[in-house]
Amino acid sequence: MKRIYLDHAATTPIDPVVLEAMLPSLTGNYGNPSSIYAEGRAAKKSIEAARLQIAKAINADLREIYFTASGSEADNWAIKGIAMKNQAKGKHIISTTIEHHAVLHTCQYLEKQGFEVTYLPVDEYGLISLDDLKKAIRKDTILVSIMFANNEIGTIEPIKAIGEIVKEKGIIFHTDAVQALGNIPVDVKDLNVDLLSLSAHKIYGPKGIGVLYIRKGVPIDNLIHGGAQERKKRAGTENTAEIVAFGKAAEFATQHLEENAVHMKTLREVLIKGIMEKIPQVRLNGHPEIRLPGNANFCFDYIEGESILLSLDIIGVAGSSGSACTSGSLEPSHVLLAIGLPAGVAHGSLRLSIGKSTTLEEINYVVDNLAEIIERLRKMSPITAECPIDDAVFDKPEHHHH
Amino acid sequence: MKRIYLDHAATTPIDPVVLEAMLPSLTGNYGNPSSIYAEGRAAKKSIEAARLQIAKAINADLREIYFTASGSEADNWAIKGIAMKNQAKGKHIISTTIEHHAVLHTCQYLEKQGFEVTYLPVDEYGLISLDDLKKAIRKDTILVSIMFANNEIGTIEPIKAIGEIVKEKGIIFHTDAVQALGNIPVDVKDLNVDLLSLSAHKIYGPKGIGVLYIRKGVPIDNLIHGGAQERKKRAGTENTAEIVAFGKAAEFATQHLEENAVHMKTLREVLIKGIMEKIPQVRLNGHPEIRLPGNANFCFDYIEGESILLSLDIIGVAGSSGSACTSGSLEPSHVLLAIGLPAGVAHGSLRLSIGKSTTLEEINYVVDNLAEIIERLRKMSPITAECPIDDAVFDKPEHHHH
Repeated sequence: MKRIYLDHAATTPIDPVVLEAMLPSLTGNYGNPSSIYAEGRAAKKSIEAARLQIAKAINADLREIYFTASGSEADNWAIKGIAMKNQAKGKHIISTTIEHHAVLHTCQYLEKQGFEVTYLPVDEYGLISLDDLKKAIRKDTILVSIMFANNEIGTIEPIKAIGEIVKEKGIIFHTDAVQALGNIPVDVKDLNVDLLSLSAHKIYGPKGIGVLYIRKGVPIDNLIHGGAQERKKRAGTENTAEIVAFGKAAEFATQHLEENAVHMKTLREVLIKGIMEKIPQVRLNGHPEIRLPGNANFCFDYIEGESILLSLDIIGVAGSSGSACTSGSLEPSHVLLAIGLPAGVAHGSLRLSIGKSTTLEEINYVVDNLAEIIERLRKMSPITAECPIDDAVFDKPEHHHH
Repeated sequence: MKRIYLDHAATTPIDPVVLEAMLPSLTGNYGNPSSIYAEGRAAKKSIEAARLQIAKAINADLREIYFTASGSEADNWAIKGIAMKNQAKGKHIISTTIEHHAVLHTCQYLEKQGFEVTYLPVDEYGLISLDDLKKAIRKDTILVSIMFANNEIGTIEPIKAIGEIVKEKGIIFHTDAVQALGNIPVDVKDLNVDLLSLSAHKIYGPKGIGVLYIRKGVPIDNLIHGGAQERKKRAGTENTAEIVAFGKAAEFATQHLEENAVHMKTLREVLIKGIMEKIPQVRLNGHPEIRLPGNANFCFDYIEGESILLSLDIIGVAGSSGSACTSGSLEPSHVLLAIGLPAGVAHGSLRLSIGKSTTLEEINYVVDNLAEIIERLRKMSPITAECPIDDAVFDKPEHHHH
């Protein structure tokens, strides 16, 4: 059975173009990039070419690009590094309730170390309020970390407007742009961000390589101390092959950004329209327009997301419930709770994320089969309209189901 | 010109066997290992198989193996994670003066955060003294971090004896075994270590993947917070391909440990004997016997290591001066200073590290040509026996040159 992969927000397959670019650094080009002999210089050259590709993709200077092992490491570095380095100025951080766990759990760890974090709420679409942000800023605020686009519901935050507010106050601004790159334009100069996290495996590159953009002059501690790699800011022998791959993936993704986005958005609308029309008691999560081109996220009343996933898997479809990072946990998504869904409804969520290779045929197959799956699961479900679970926590009566 | 690679301590080429094992995870097997559908389960299975291979290679339980992005990350995690988690018990750490920078700079960073670190000295061969260690242990000592084998001079520390002393005092013991794995037996149960750092690219695996062994029950904070990967201890989407590669590399290295070690040791002795006989005013650094099988490290009076390296590079030989991580820096090696060499002599160091594919022909070529290079460089050098540099810092008159 041919598989239909609709979990591109979790990870993407490596593009053949990217694989071709990285293979020479796996079969050869093995020199240590810090060494001065020919093998070392060749590896160094490959890395610096990739650094330039990344820099161009986000309109940065190549000396502002630091390779990490993941988006999570970049988030940890940005937040801990700024907090530790600037704590004499203040120990207050502003973030949001819908961040990726790499940001949320890092903030929570810092709270244990004596820092104070304000988590901005979001509206029913997952958007923060600029007024809330302005009110949250204090004299001891040293960092604002707000994600570019949400990994679960796809909502895109007003990063440029946030950047202006934060810059005016002289505060450092970090954004996790892991879901944004390759899907929407990312321009660090235009956005006024000081730090920005990226990951290769979301844009058809390999797993295990990320980037932290650090605007020149931003004072930050290292997260990983040791050798002089990455201009003494991030120790560890450079992952030459994956760095080269990330460079190529970033270049390729930005070159084809517009056409890929249009393609994904078209299919997304077919998917959303089909599901909303064919299936009763379903809700679209996230903003209807201000969302990532490939993201669709639904809640189906009375059933559990995991049951939907397993049923889809059986008919050859890979989807997701919440983020992959917390799969296996029985807790409902913190993002869906943050947009006001009661825990019982949040449990019934399904994220289908479209990629550049997704076809209309695949989308139609999913739409055609999902209605049947949902109907069958609902018949089996002990949860009904007459006997709902968790309605006690449904504390936002104005919240509407579609 | 065929190149002769003698910098295996800096990094190694990927073995074809390892490449073959990892390729399926680059061309396919791209599922997010945390996802519950077929693609995710397949990736998860590959990772757990690799975890078992690593566990077997060091006689650990597979639940004690945590993948990182490098040996440096493993060192940082071990030291910062133990320090932060156990600071209520005490803020004293014991390490040595010859550690890798990933340990040294991490310790120095912790000193800025209010921790106290005792750096044990070493003798002229690079060995620590067990008596020094015993004397350094205090009631508030929470961690001892001593490397298994030195990356520059190859000296192997008495890890088992250290482990017994540290265990008796109820202190946590970490060792950086990055240079040991694949070269000498590494058995965590036999050695009484609590934490142990490993890196794939030193044993014919790819760059960008490491391991921290954490003995079950050892209390440690995370270094990278976020998703639930690595049993909630190390966030970030798993680098499936490189994890699979590391598993294979570790299995392969331990299977062929004995034959590879004998081969490297034989060539090392030819190399050392040839150089000591043919070149005057040369010194062998590190212990003559208690050293890594592939390591040879020399100091040549009156010349700079970098000049030797560049001359060797021209005739097709890749060697190293000090560790790759600090190349480009003009500071002499902290390891060579620690064994008592004056800065002027330490500058003239050359490390040649043999690998499993190195041939006798290659070694003979180097021996034959190095004498000529050294002689030529000495003729050009402004430093002479009559006009030495840095003799003022030669404060150990008992120190003998071979």
